[in-house]
Amino acid sequence: MTTLHEASTAGTGRVTALERAALRHVLAVLEQPPLEVVLWNGEVVRAGYGTAIARVIIRRRGWLWPLLYRPDLYFGAAYSRGAVDIEGDIVRLLEYFEPLERNAARRRWWERLKLHLPLRESRALARARSNIHHHYDIGNTFYRLWLDPELVYTCAYFPERTTGLADAQQAKMEYVCRKLCLQPGETVVEAGCGWGGLSLYMARHCGVRVRAYNISREQVLYARARARAEGLDGQVEFIEQDYRSITDTCDAFVSVGMLEHVGKVHYGEFGAVIDRCLGPGGRGLLHSIGRDRPMLLNAWIEHQIFPGAYPPALGEMLEVLAAGGFSVLDIENLRLHYARTVELWLQRYERSADEVRRMFDEEFVRAWRFYLAGSIAAFRSGSLQLFQLTFSRPGARDLPWTRAGLYQDRLPESPA
Amino acid sequence: MTTLHEASTAGTGRVTALERAALRHVLAVLEQPPLEVVLWNGEVVRAGYGTAIARVIIRRRGWLWPLLYRPDLYFGAAYSRGAVDIEGDIVRLLEYFEPLERNAARRRWWERLKLHLPLRESRALARARSNIHHHYDIGNTFYRLWLDPELVYTCAYFPERTTGLADAQQAKMEYVCRKLCLQPGETVVEAGCGWGGLSLYMARHCGVRVRAYNISREQVLYARARARAEGLDGQVEFIEQDYRSITDTCDAFVSVGMLEHVGKVHYGEFGAVIDRCLGPGGRGLLHSIGRDRPMLLNAWIEHQIFPGAYPPALGEMLEVLAAGGFSVLDIENLRLHYARTVELWLQRYERSADEVRRMFDEEFVRAWRFYLAGSIAAFRSGSLQLFQLTFSRPGARDLPWTRAGLYQDRLPESPA
Repeated sequence: MTTLHEASTAGTGRVTALERAALRHVLAVLEQPPLEVVLWNGEVVRAGYGTAIARVIIRRRGWLWPLLYRPDLYFGAAYSRGAVDIEGDIVRLLEYFEPLERNAARRRWWERLKLHLPLRESRALARARSNIHHHYDIGNTFYRLWLDPELVYTCAYFPERTTGLADAQQAKMEYVCRKLCLQPGETVVEAGCGWGGLSLYMARHCGVRVRAYNISREQVLYARARARAEGLDGQVEFIEQDYRSITDTCDAFVSVGMLEHVGKVHYGEFGAVIDRCLGPGGRGLLHSIGRDRPMLLNAWIEHQIFPGAYPPALGEMLEVLAAGGFSVLDIENLRLHYARTVELWLQRYERSADEVRRMFDEEFVRAWRFYLAGSIAAFRSGSLQLFQLTFSRPGARDLPWTRAGLYQDRLPESPA
Repeated sequence: MTTLHEASTAGTGRVTALERAALRHVLAVLEQPPLEVVLWNGEVVRAGYGTAIARVIIRRRGWLWPLLYRPDLYFGAAYSRGAVDIEGDIVRLLEYFEPLERNAARRRWWERLKLHLPLRESRALARARSNIHHHYDIGNTFYRLWLDPELVYTCAYFPERTTGLADAQQAKMEYVCRKLCLQPGETVVEAGCGWGGLSLYMARHCGVRVRAYNISREQVLYARARARAEGLDGQVEFIEQDYRSITDTCDAFVSVGMLEHVGKVHYGEFGAVIDRCLGPGGRGLLHSIGRDRPMLLNAWIEHQIFPGAYPPALGEMLEVLAAGGFSVLDIENLRLHYARTVELWLQRYERSADEVRRMFDEEFVRAWRFYLAGSIAAFRSGSLQLFQLTFSRPGARDLPWTRAGLYQDRLPESPA
């Protein structure tokens, strides 16, 4: 802890009656989560009944008011900097904040305003590159510590609750291929391909040709090296370009975990890109974190972890398809699968915490722990959803007659 | 034909160059469907290439301009009254009109305006009753001629393309029960229950208690009699009331084929009704004809067959759920299943045409043929969709882990 500047200057002053009352008020608004709050002078404030799920230690007096006023913004910041410590179940603790946060966000007029302002410039090309660079180019070594061997950084699909992470990511890729009805020899465009796991899977298992787009240089270089190593570089091309520059034609269009970075004002443009490249008998799949209703991303996550990101409401996702004139075939909410995915990421992350600390610093370790734990809480409590959406040209007839085929054969397990 | 007043006054005058040119222009706009048009004086105008799929005989000169100007409105009217005859494949003929109609509807300013006007009174209670009476109270004997034995007047679910109508309606009811995860002893509210088929199925096969609402008196009386005959009247109650008067609490809320009659301005109210009655662990299912994008119902159908009906775009359906604060779990587009359902209805209808003529008259026979054929064309060509949508309270965790269970056991067949 002593490496953190905040912890080293821990406050000592007495707790005023006003501070105590404000804290008790916020705990009441949170409907008395079973927890203990330890204040900077050692005073303990208990809430709820039964065994406490966590102990929140506020080390620095100066953080109390920001924490009480905007926990969504300052809890993550205070925790990362060591001004707040959490002992116990951090995920269950954060789950208690989710409904409060959902309600509070609806009351904040500037967030409601921002939801409706057409911030067209926010994801212009240069900004998009810098946003993506911020998150995805911090080092493949870092992500390798806690993602699965294929480096799939999106929601996995668990055929059983007990399926492991690597198997669940394999199953997800197979599931996406089945939803897309890929046939050997077809061409696929992937928009936002990460480290290339899905593109390589489609080439390897479905015999399709893939053109995959991504503006993260580190990811593209890594993906190209993998394609060469596997001898798939004749079949899969990784292109360091934005989705807006896609001009290929294809039989299937797939985008897994990119829409969150597209920005609402660009959905029409994105739909037009898909319309431009998808052939007449084409199928498409969008996979994105989403919401039940429009709401900004958590302010701290948006500031610290994912600049420019916005998880759309399902109705907003449909705007992409309306712009392309497409017809929705199937929408599946995999919210609980994403909660499970991040649980497994967090377990692996904790096992590598020392290594992460050596690569970055304690503040980074804590910030990412808070982000991962907060994501689990958001998916568990239903603040975030995961929508997987399949579509076609209107009037398509050459479609699977039912969805039964998706579940007929066991999904394959990881070769590892 | 002589029973129809229009046919008896068939015109004879010559065809002017302007009439011929206008007809050729419309056939060109339709992209030259392979058909023959026979005019009142016997003159034949051919379009398209290859074998003609149908021959359209325009018997009355006075109908030409209305037909060319607004086929969506006057084709059905002219056909019903015998001013136009169709020989050949009426469904395939009407399929050619669908894309034209979709484009034309987007250009008609008054339709676009009507789409956005909050016509709040249009489905007020008295009007709703009269609209429903118009369609559903024309006689159970009539519907018994061509529906399945359970009188299910909504899209069936065909586990195989070759499944028969009665089996497919049984399969649909089982499929809906599986999607709702019904458990014995639970309570279900059904809004818009038709002749009671689904309510009785749920009581019989899932051991649930059902309260089912409907404002069609004929249907309610019929459903009550069936419940008594089966000894299920202690378990299923049929209530002749509007969905707005529902005050029960329930574990599952289901509405199959009612949303089309609710009217867009009442979606918020409908969502609030579901919110009021669904318990905390509750599940819901909405099943409705829909659209890829907002568009009025075909003018002739709305006027002649379904007054006040409006098939919502998927985004509009989501407004119902947003109003109740629900979370979408699953959306399935069963468009091709509805095309197949109506194909089987039309086959049965044609076999009973003589009986229908005795019950009503030739104009009625032809109007309903045109309506059924037009519906097949609309579903085949993608003008209409069928969305089956499952939802829960936000943050629900006690959900099926995957959708595989829906397809695990064979769906049951009709006992008949």
